[in-house]
Amino acid sequence: MGRGDLEPTDIVRYEEDGPRVVLLDQRRLPEERVELECRTIDELVAAIRSLAVRGAPAIGVAAAYGLALAAARGDDVDTAAAALAASRPTAVNLAWALAEMRDDPTPAHARRLHDEEVARCRAMAAHAAELFGPGTRALTHCNAGGLATGGYGSAVGALRAAWERGLLAHVWVDETRPLLQGSRLTAWELDALGISHTVIVDSAAASLMAAGDVDCVVTGADRIAANGDTANKIGTYSLAVLAAHHELPFYVVAPTSTIDLDTPTGADIPIEERDGAELTARFAARNPAFDVTPAALITAIVTEHGVREPVAL
Amino acid sequence: MGRGDLEPTDIVRYEEDGPRVVLLDQRRLPEERVELECRTIDELVAAIRSLAVRGAPAIGVAAAYGLALAAARGDDVDTAAAALAASRPTAVNLAWALAEMRDDPTPAHARRLHDEEVARCRAMAAHAAELFGPGTRALTHCNAGGLATGGYGSAVGALRAAWERGLLAHVWVDETRPLLQGSRLTAWELDALGISHTVIVDSAAASLMAAGDVDCVVTGADRIAANGDTANKIGTYSLAVLAAHHELPFYVVAPTSTIDLDTPTGADIPIEERDGAELTARFAARNPAFDVTPAALITAIVTEHGVREPVAL
Repeated sequence: MGRGDLEPTDIVRYEEDGPRVVLLDQRRLPEERVELECRTIDELVAAIRSLAVRGAPAIGVAAAYGLALAAARGDDVDTAAAALAASRPTAVNLAWALAEMRDDPTPAHARRLHDEEVARCRAMAAHAAELFGPGTRALTHCNAGGLATGGYGSAVGALRAAWERGLLAHVWVDETRPLLQGSRLTAWELDALGISHTVIVDSAAASLMAAGDVDCVVTGADRIAANGDTANKIGTYSLAVLAAHHELPFYVVAPTSTIDLDTPTGADIPIEERDGAELTARFAARNPAFDVTPAALITAIVTEHGVREPVAL
Repeated sequence: MGRGDLEPTDIVRYEEDGPRVVLLDQRRLPEERVELECRTIDELVAAIRSLAVRGAPAIGVAAAYGLALAAARGDDVDTAAAALAASRPTAVNLAWALAEMRDDPTPAHARRLHDEEVARCRAMAAHAAELFGPGTRALTHCNAGGLATGGYGSAVGALRAAWERGLLAHVWVDETRPLLQGSRLTAWELDALGISHTVIVDSAAASLMAAGDVDCVVTGADRIAANGDTANKIGTYSLAVLAAHHELPFYVVAPTSTIDLDTPTGADIPIEERDGAELTARFAARNPAFDVTPAALITAIVTEHGVREPVAL
């Protein structure tokens, strides 16, 4: 891997010695690089809920290791799966990974699933890079990097593949309030990878677009409904409307583990409401963590199988 | 005035004893209610630059008192006016107030100008309230309250007039990154006035609109060009595009001291770029403090003279 890259095992791994699931604590980045050890399902559920590990594919991988942990401890695997599935509502990767693991809840199986997610990221990135013209200035939101996927990244993976091919000139990084995954995590990853970038407040994206400083928007996804409607970090829908207004392409890069054929449309995706205290402890606040972007506003969805364009049929 | 209201002299006033300009230090709200005393033009320029006093009409009023201070001190009034005019570039009220004061730089004149700004706010509010239907849920950005105008408020003035008439059901308050004038100042003012409100991250406005929870957007302005293009806090243009996409009215409420007939269009308005450290000290950041909303996206501009609709001719 390239300089400054995070190894998949740096982000989340299983250790038989314990046994335990070890996470890079994303709440403390970039100030501190600290690992969090989860020896029980309750500890892992708390880690997922509190965003020590976050990003749809990464929490799927963490839950897969969690099921291996439950089996190794002799816990009831069904009970553990239910607790992990309920830890966060929006990302479908959690349910997907638990279903995948159910018949074989072993560390070896979880590691294979983890490896496959990272391989999907690399495949997506190669497909997505085809969408970039020379000198592209891309805007991204939240963190869809290696931290979010357990290695390499989805949207950030696409950006690194484009950067390696000499097609990417610059990345505008939305800081992504309230928890600043953009300025804390994406900027940190891009910095380590040596990719040119600038952090902006989320609300500045529109005027950068109007000034002609943005060529496309690239994000990850937490759940893609059967019709292509896509749930992702709050603010993603706003960017899609703004991109359409400025006639810019809006790309979603996500593995098929994020696609939920059992959810017909975006209206059926549960949107997590987090504690308003994440914004302000002083006043009443609403804190939806995700929003839904209608398929009609998405130029293309890129999975490991290729580029799907147009999304809306 | 109503309960919880700030008196104009609480926000900015001139004291002959000193002499000095006394400001409510808006950087320290809402945690602390502390006054800042400026005894020299340099101190007042520093206070305006560092946002101890902010909001286009309020900095105009502060500069008016500043010119009275310069004259009382025996400073060269031209030099003082130039320093004050250069303290911040986007709001035109600064230049307007200094031009108004030039021939009579006395405390009495500055106080009259201050009173007139507050009277304009009350007149605007009465006009703007006519635009509200019963049960309106309005969204506002930044702080266009009494703190921003030296009393009563422009956009917030409109909201309070609508609230008093029983037409306003709720206010969504954009927190307004990077300096959080929405969650720190507007929420504080609305709370004191007893007006129902909820703080949101700026990027959540779009999904609230999509969910049908917003009926209109109401903001202030820092400078209105001759063609109606309007500069205001970064993120305002984003809201205007989103309002148009969701077919919601977008209202600008501002006194005529904000209109600059010498600036033909929004492209001619200087946009202040502030230190990126206001976002993050860690990484490269761009921090434009304002953006420009084209007249075509503004449903109406309300001044003390009435409602101008449509704005674009």
